[in-house]
Amino acid sequence: MKNNIIKPSILAGFMELLPKNQKKFDDIVSKIKAVYEENGCEAIDTPIIEKSEVLLAKSGGETEKQVYSFEKGKNKMALRFDLTVPFARYTAQHFDELAFPFRRYQIGKVYRGERNQRGRYREFYQCDVDVIGKNSLSINNDAWVINLADRAFKAIGLTSYKFQISNRKILKGILSELEIERENDVMTLIDKYDKIGEKCFNDELTKVIGSEQAEIINNIISIEGSSDETIKRLSEFKFSNETFIEGIKELEKVTNILSCLGVSSDKFTINLKIIRGLDYYTGTVFETFLTGNESYGSVCSGGRYDNLAEKYTNNILPGVGMSIGLTRLFFVLSEIGFLDTYKANNSLDYLILPLGDTMDYCIEVMNDLQKKNYVATVYFEESTLKKMMIYANKIQAENVIIIGEDEVKNKRLKSKNMKTGEETYINL
Amino acid sequence: MKNNIIKPSILAGFMELLPKNQKKFDDIVSKIKAVYEENGCEAIDTPIIEKSEVLLAKSGGETEKQVYSFEKGKNKMALRFDLTVPFARYTAQHFDELAFPFRRYQIGKVYRGERNQRGRYREFYQCDVDVIGKNSLSINNDAWVINLADRAFKAIGLTSYKFQISNRKILKGILSELEIERENDVMTLIDKYDKIGEKCFNDELTKVIGSEQAEIINNIISIEGSSDETIKRLSEFKFSNETFIEGIKELEKVTNILSCLGVSSDKFTINLKIIRGLDYYTGTVFETFLTGNESYGSVCSGGRYDNLAEKYTNNILPGVGMSIGLTRLFFVLSEIGFLDTYKANNSLDYLILPLGDTMDYCIEVMNDLQKKNYVATVYFEESTLKKMMIYANKIQAENVIIIGEDEVKNKRLKSKNMKTGEETYINL
Repeated sequence: MKNNIIKPSILAGFMELLPKNQKKFDDIVSKIKAVYEENGCEAIDTPIIEKSEVLLAKSGGETEKQVYSFEKGKNKMALRFDLTVPFARYTAQHFDELAFPFRRYQIGKVYRGERNQRGRYREFYQCDVDVIGKNSLSINNDAWVINLADRAFKAIGLTSYKFQISNRKILKGILSELEIERENDVMTLIDKYDKIGEKCFNDELTKVIGSEQAEIINNIISIEGSSDETIKRLSEFKFSNETFIEGIKELEKVTNILSCLGVSSDKFTINLKIIRGLDYYTGTVFETFLTGNESYGSVCSGGRYDNLAEKYTNNILPGVGMSIGLTRLFFVLSEIGFLDTYKANNSLDYLILPLGDTMDYCIEVMNDLQKKNYVATVYFEESTLKKMMIYANKIQAENVIIIGEDEVKNKRLKSKNMKTGEETYINL
Repeated sequence: MKNNIIKPSILAGFMELLPKNQKKFDDIVSKIKAVYEENGCEAIDTPIIEKSEVLLAKSGGETEKQVYSFEKGKNKMALRFDLTVPFARYTAQHFDELAFPFRRYQIGKVYRGERNQRGRYREFYQCDVDVIGKNSLSINNDAWVINLADRAFKAIGLTSYKFQISNRKILKGILSELEIERENDVMTLIDKYDKIGEKCFNDELTKVIGSEQAEIINNIISIEGSSDETIKRLSEFKFSNETFIEGIKELEKVTNILSCLGVSSDKFTINLKIIRGLDYYTGTVFETFLTGNESYGSVCSGGRYDNLAEKYTNNILPGVGMSIGLTRLFFVLSEIGFLDTYKANNSLDYLILPLGDTMDYCIEVMNDLQKKNYVATVYFEESTLKKMMIYANKIQAENVIIIGEDEVKNKRLKSKNMKTGEETYINL
C-alpha cells in the first residue's frame, strides 16, 4: 500500500544547505563566535517570537509590512525581524541586573517577508555585537566593534574586504554651517549616491540646494586618500560648527584606535558618503565591502546611536554596534568561489570499516582515536568493502582504517588516506 | 519630552536568561555539539518556518492544536514543533545527494503552544541525533545513539542519570503469543504505568485482558536486575513468537554494544514499561531519568522506527534517534542546584583597567594576552578605579590588570585575582 506522497519542499526565500556546505557554514559561525567570546562579549539569546506591541513599538512602514505576525489564543505575536529591537527590549527589561557597559553578542535567525529575489533570504542569520553604556559610552568602543568584525573576517580567512567609515556629525555640522535647511533631503540623496550614480546625484543635489552649495558638498564627500589625509583635508575647511569639529575628532580617534587594535590601514578607509539611513545612527557609521565584489553590497554594517531603548525605558542608553549578515555573506562567498576551497575544521578524520565479525575491536579503535582528539566513527552496517569505500568517499572521510580478523589478531592497523591513497601504520 | 514607554516583556512560556546563566547554557550546548561532532555526526539546519501542508502532513490531534501556524501572502506556514518532521522532509527532499547511513545531528529551537505551566516552555531547544539507513540499518546504531547521549551527559559533568531501555518487539511478541487482541489498549496502559501507579494499572489491565493474562504481563514488565539477568529471565519464558525472540536478541545486542562503547553498566537498565507512545517507534525505545529526580520526567528519549519519511517518499528509510530536550534539562538542572556550581569554560580571564592616558598600552596588553589564548578585554571608559572594580566584579572577570602611567613606563604588570585577591606579576 502506497501512501499519498506529499512533495517535500520548503518555502521560497529560505536557505537550506547540504551537509557538505552546512559544515562550512557552521565552521564560519563558530569562528565568528570564538572571536566575540575571546574578546569578552557576553552572549544573549532572545525568543524568536515576541509580543507584537513590544516588537513593533518603534517600527512602521516597510519593516512592518515585512514582519511575520500572527495570533495564538488572545496573544498577538510576531517573529523578530532583527536582533536590535529584541536587544533593546532585553536591556530595558533586565536593566537592573546588567553591568554597563554591556557588551553583548547574539547570533541568531531573523525573519523578513521580503520580495523573493536571488540572494535575498526571508530567514537569515545575523551576528551582532553591541556595546551599551549607561548615560555615556566612550568613542573607543566604536573602533572596538569594527575591530571585532575585522578579527572575525580574518578568522574566516577573508583577505579582500574594506571598512568604509564615516561619522554622521561631520555632514550634519557642515549642513548646519552652510545653513542648508533641507538637511534630510541632502542626507537621503547622499545615502543613495552609489545607487543613483554621480551624474544623477549632482543633478538632484543642485535642485535641492543650488549649484554653489552642491559643489561644496561634492568637494567634501569626494575626498579620497588615507585616513590621515582625509581628516587633514576636512580640518582645512575651517568650519567653526561644533558638531562638525566633534565629528572629525571622533573619526580621528576611531581610526587611531583601529590601528592600535591591529586593524591594518589597508582594511579601512574614510568614506563620507556612508550614511546608513536617517533614523537610527548619530555618530560613527560604517559598511563593509568585499574588494572587487562591491556590487553585492555591504556584508557588515553598524554604527553609533544615542539611545538604544527609548521606547522601553527612560534610561539613556547610548551604544555602538555592528552586524555581520551571515546568510547573505555565505551566499556571496559561495558566488565568488571563496567556499570552493574553504576547509572546515570539523571533518571526519577516521572512518573505521569492519570486515567480518570485528565490531568490538573497531569500537575499541574508535575510542582510542577519540582519546587522541580525532573525529572518528565506525561504519556499523554489514557490507562489502567496495560499498564501504564508496560511502567513505561520499561523506569525505579523511582516512579509513579497515579492520578484518587479521587486524584483530595482530593489532597492527593500516590507515589509508582517502585523497592520496597513501597507507600508514598507526599505533594505538 | 518623554516617550510613551511600552513595558518591556516577553510572552509567557518563553525562557530568557541573564548573561551569567546564558554562559552556562551555551557552554552546555557547545559540549553536546562537540560530542556529536567528535563522533562524526553531520549537522543540518532547517528553516524554523515550513509549509503547513508539508509540516503537518503526518500530525493531527493534540500536536496540530499546539502548532503556531499563520499565513503570509498566499502561503500557509507553520513553525516546526520538533526536529524530526523537518528532518524527514529534508532527507526525502535531498535523498539523492545524501550518503546513507546518514548520521545527522541538529540543535535548534522548536515551538509548541502548550498550556502554560512551570517548567514547560513554548520555545525550546532540542539536540537530536538520528541515523537513517536506506532499506536497512544495523542494530549497532541503536546502542550508538544512546552512547552519544551518555557521552553528552558526561561532557556536561552529569553523573546521576540512567537510561531505561526496552524493545517494543518484546511486548508485541508476547501479546501476540498470548493472543491478546486489544494490543493497543494494553500498550497504552503500560505507557501510562508511572503516571497512574501500580494499583490503578493492575485494575485497568485486569479489566482489559482478565486477571490470568494480567498476571503474566505484570510478571514480565516488573522484571528487575542487571541487563544480563533481565534478558536471561525473559528468555526463560520460552515464547516461540518470532517478534518476541527478535526483540530479545536486539535488546541483548544493544546492551552488549553499549558496554563495548564504554557506557557504564550502572548507567543503563532494561525497563519493559518504557513504550513511548504508539505511533512511531517499532523496536528499541529508551528514556533517561536523573537519578533521585525522576519526577521531572525523561530528559532524553528516543528509539527505532521503521520508516522516517513515508509521507514524503516511497524510499524505505529505517532509523534510530535520540533527542536531548535541552531547555527542559536546563530548567531541571537549575531546580536541582546543579547549575549553582557549574563552571562555564567561556569566562573572561583578564579585564584590563586603564588609569589615566594609557589606552594604547592597554590594547597592546590585551592583544598579547589574546595571543596566549586568554579571553581578554579592556575597560574602555574613563572612570575611577572603584567603579572599574565594581564592574569587574559584576561581570565576573577572573583577573584584572590595572595599567597606570608607571606600568607603561616600567612594562611591569600586576594581575589581581578577583576571587582570592592574590596579586602576581605577569610577563608579556
